[in-house]
Amino acid sequence: MKRRKWYSKKNLYEVIFGTDTPAGKGYDIALLVVIFISVIVAIWESTPRPSPMVKTVLTVMEYVITLIFTLEYAVRIYCHPRPKDYIFSFFGVVDLLSTLPLYLSLILPGAHYLVMIRAFRLTRVFRIFRMFTYVNEGILLMQSLKRSLSKILVYLLFVLILVTIIGTIEYVIENGEPGSGFTDLPSSIYWAIVTMTTVGYGDITPVTTTGRLLSALVMVLGYTIIAVPTGIVSANYINETRKRVKNGRCPRCGKKVEEGFKYCPHCAEKL
Amino acid sequence: MKRRKWYSKKNLYEVIFGTDTPAGKGYDIALLVVIFISVIVAIWESTPRPSPMVKTVLTVMEYVITLIFTLEYAVRIYCHPRPKDYIFSFFGVVDLLSTLPLYLSLILPGAHYLVMIRAFRLTRVFRIFRMFTYVNEGILLMQSLKRSLSKILVYLLFVLILVTIIGTIEYVIENGEPGSGFTDLPSSIYWAIVTMTTVGYGDITPVTTTGRLLSALVMVLGYTIIAVPTGIVSANYINETRKRVKNGRCPRCGKKVEEGFKYCPHCAEKL
Amino acid sequence: MKRRKWYSKKNLYEVIFGTDTPAGKGYDIALLVVIFISVIVAIWESTPRPSPMVKTVLTVMEYVITLIFTLEYAVRIYCHPRPKDYIFSFFGVVDLLSTLPLYLSLILPGAHYLVMIRAFRLTRVFRIFRMFTYVNEGILLMQSLKRSLSKILVYLLFVLILVTIIGTIEYVIENGEPGSGFTDLPSSIYWAIVTMTTVGYGDITPVTTTGRLLSALVMVLGYTIIAVPTGIVSANYINETRKRVKNGRCPRCGKKVEEGFKYCPHCAEKL
Amino acid sequence: MKRRKWYSKKNLYEVIFGTDTPAGKGYDIALLVVIFISVIVAIWESTPRPSPMVKTVLTVMEYVITLIFTLEYAVRIYCHPRPKDYIFSFFGVVDLLSTLPLYLSLILPGAHYLVMIRAFRLTRVFRIFRMFTYVNEGILLMQSLKRSLSKILVYLLFVLILVTIIGTIEYVIENGEPGSGFTDLPSSIYWAIVTMTTVGYGDITPVTTTGRLLSALVMVLGYTIIAVPTGIVSANYINETRKRVKNGRCPRCGKKVEEGFKYCPHCAEKL
Repeated sequence: MKRRKWYSKKNLYEVIFGTDTPAGKGYDIALLVVIFISVIVAIWESTPRPSPMVKTVLTVMEYVITLIFTLEYAVRIYCHPRPKDYIFSFFGVVDLLSTLPLYLSLILPGAHYLVMIRAFRLTRVFRIFRMFTYVNEGILLMQSLKRSLSKILVYLLFVLILVTIIGTIEYVIENGEPGSGFTDLPSSIYWAIVTMTTVGYGDITPVTTTGRLLSALVMVLGYTIIAVPTGIVSANYINETRKRVKNGRCPRCGKKVEEGFKYCPHCAEKL
Repeated sequence: MKRRKWYSKKNLYEVIFGTDTPAGKGYDIALLVVIFISVIVAIWESTPRPSPMVKTVLTVMEYVITLIFTLEYAVRIYCHPRPKDYIFSFFGVVDLLSTLPLYLSLILPGAHYLVMIRAFRLTRVFRIFRMFTYVNEGILLMQSLKRSLSKILVYLLFVLILVTIIGTIEYVIENGEPGSGFTDLPSSIYWAIVTMTTVGYGDITPVTTTGRLLSALVMVLGYTIIAVPTGIVSANYINETRKRVKNGRCPRCGKKVEEGFKYCPHCAEKL
Repeated sequence: MKRRKWYSKKNLYEVIFGTDTPAGKGYDIALLVVIFISVIVAIWESTPRPSPMVKTVLTVMEYVITLIFTLEYAVRIYCHPRPKDYIFSFFGVVDLLSTLPLYLSLILPGAHYLVMIRAFRLTRVFRIFRMFTYVNEGILLMQSLKRSLSKILVYLLFVLILVTIIGTIEYVIENGEPGSGFTDLPSSIYWAIVTMTTVGYGDITPVTTTGRLLSALVMVLGYTIIAVPTGIVSANYINETRKRVKNGRCPRCGKKVEEGFKYCPHCAEKL
Repeated sequence: MKRRKWYSKKNLYEVIFGTDTPAGKGYDIALLVVIFISVIVAIWESTPRPSPMVKTVLTVMEYVITLIFTLEYAVRIYCHPRPKDYIFSFFGVVDLLSTLPLYLSLILPGAHYLVMIRAFRLTRVFRIFRMFTYVNEGILLMQSLKRSLSKILVYLLFVLILVTIIGTIEYVIENGEPGSGFTDLPSSIYWAIVTMTTVGYGDITPVTTTGRLLSALVMVLGYTIIAVPTGIVSANYINETRKRVKNGRCPRCGKKVEEGFKYCPHCAEKL
């Protein structure tokens, strides 16, 4: 086997995109650490406390990280066999958006916070540590959620109409009371959502007895309603896992059966 | 086929009530947009911010929308084969109530907020986009809720008696403390509901150690109790979906079977 | 059949304790109304707003209701075949406690709020309206909860130890911060319970970054932990309903089978 | 049988470590009471209210309890057949940490709160009262949680990335508003967690309409997402209990079957 030069396209591809070789794994772990640091730097930069020295260090780090990401993005495009496939893939777009913020922030002040998109790159952690079974779990979950999506959407529309009506009634009751937070309809609908989801900030709360009575009704309603999506997803998930069990094992005795068998070799159950 | 005039009763009926023809579908979509705009206008009008010009525009829009709804309501009655059936149907009443607010607000100031009833008209969205499967999901859900209703009602009565007792005890403990929100029994019962449903506004909170101890008990109680309705609805929903599967498919092998079959053609299971 | 005098022991027993005769049903409904009014009066009396006239009316009503309850209690003892059985039954004790508060309040000021015990008498509503199926649901639920009780108790002890530890750690982190509510250990443990049950009053909240980090951990922990009792009760409830279905119907085809049958008459399943 | 002296190693071991003899049970109950008192003393000491006399009593109690625990720890090491096994066991470490705080607090002021580790010693309550079935329930629960752990971990990572993104967006929207709590990214991410878990303290709340709109979305999102871990644990727990039922009983008729049986003696089901 001819030894490839370390900077050959194929070699770079194996190291940067692959996780099978020790170098590829090491590279990905190093990258994860850099991404994690870049997120921490961005979070730290936003705090008002850092002393001028810390601020300088953070800014320098931000520049260094952006440089690393820019170089890495260029190399990824260079070494990929079909660059366009990479550029327009989910991770390709995330990688591009991870490099841009600093450049954009020179023009747009708010753009700096796009660095948080880098958080998405952390999902690579699954690929590196071969947590495929974990990913499978995630996919099974996603399927369960997807299968429930249509039901949940209908449900959400119903909830949306409900909170609009409830918010309006509470607004009519509470508006005008001194110190009341129900100053307009958007605030009242916001209050209805905050209450029904049992979040309950307490920034807007009813002060009249009538308002509190309706409020109590809404809570108990939300309390009962919270049961519905839980029931849907649970039911779907249970059915999902049951089906899997059926495929791999005999549905009667529970022992493993090979695919293609017509009868269960343990209990004679027709399969 | 004789061409009907566009303003013929039958033609109007097809366009306004039907969704099968392109015109009928287009009409319903246009109506949905108007309803949606009218809800947004009503919400916007309630905010204290709009400048005089915006306010004028919103008022004019409100008048125009009311005019459209009034005309539409008249035409619906005119073209329906049995007007009384329409007038006393759910959507007939909602349509009427959607036109009245502006007229009523000339007499009663608060009546203006009845415009929010228009939100109910948005449920037509399901009919237009033929989201029948979604509606079926909704119906299945409703059935599941209905079947659980008796249990949930017994449960709610129990909860109501419980919060009355708890609210009274906490009132006896906390009343008289400086800065305490437990000024009367209704407030205390309201606090008990806010706490047990885990909403937790924080507008009324215990300040004494004894009060906090009881409060903690109530939370953990509510925490355990929240499991009950969820369990009920989940169990009913799972049974509901299981029954359906049984009817359409063989309960043993899971393959589709036609109605009337005495044996499953795939696994010889007696049906 | 000899006609009994209306004030005969047996007749009074039938009217007061029974619900089968029209008079017995009427009496119970009238009693329910009086109980309901007495609860409303007690709640109303606690509010600081009532004008002197309203206050007088409420006080008079309280006296009248107490008189009615005292008389009723005396008659119940008089007409019951085994008075001791009634006196020491659950409803006997509740009935006694419902008459005492006014008498006690002449000696002890706080005793007045014992009137709220009358709320328990409202549970008779089930008996009157023959909501036996509702009561059955309640009993099934209670059984499901009872069967889960041992698990939930172990769980609660675990939670109690957990919140003690968490409250202490947060106390060590937050104590001494200006404006911090973590002034002592009871407050901190109370905060831990408020947080883990997702009630979240907001009367005590972390202000340091470390405190918020731990706080976020506790929330996500509570978020995951909340799933456990729900799962337990749901699972038990599903098993409970499944067993019932099995007893009354064939477990394979789902059709009704009479008790004692050895084979299902519809699908030949051995029972 | 030769009578052992009461202070013999074997006798002490039976009393201190065992719970089978009356003396062993009595000793463990007495120890539980002391542990419970020590936790209460520690909690009481932290409150700012105690009068000087109470404070002195509490300090003396703390010294006495520490002395008892120190002696007990020494005796436990002395009488254990393999002292090292005890010292490095979970309870050995907890016992050691329970004696240290007072000694450490002479050097480090904060170390005093390590006394709360004693709370862990309370878990011995299960062993003493032979609540083995309870412990079994706990173990079954733990297994159910463990089996769900991988799924829940994937889920938590997803949630972590989600709250980072949401917190950043809300920060960009709300930062700079007067009276806004969104002063930096950590606060905003903390707010996102507080909101998504439906805790909702209300210490940081959106004030702009855009911010409230996103906030409402996050709540409804969290509302739907809360269903997922519940579904997972429920499903696993149901499967867990079902498997147990299968092993001990016939899966078809539900009657008890002895191990080793090839056919159910009640319904001829092959096992």
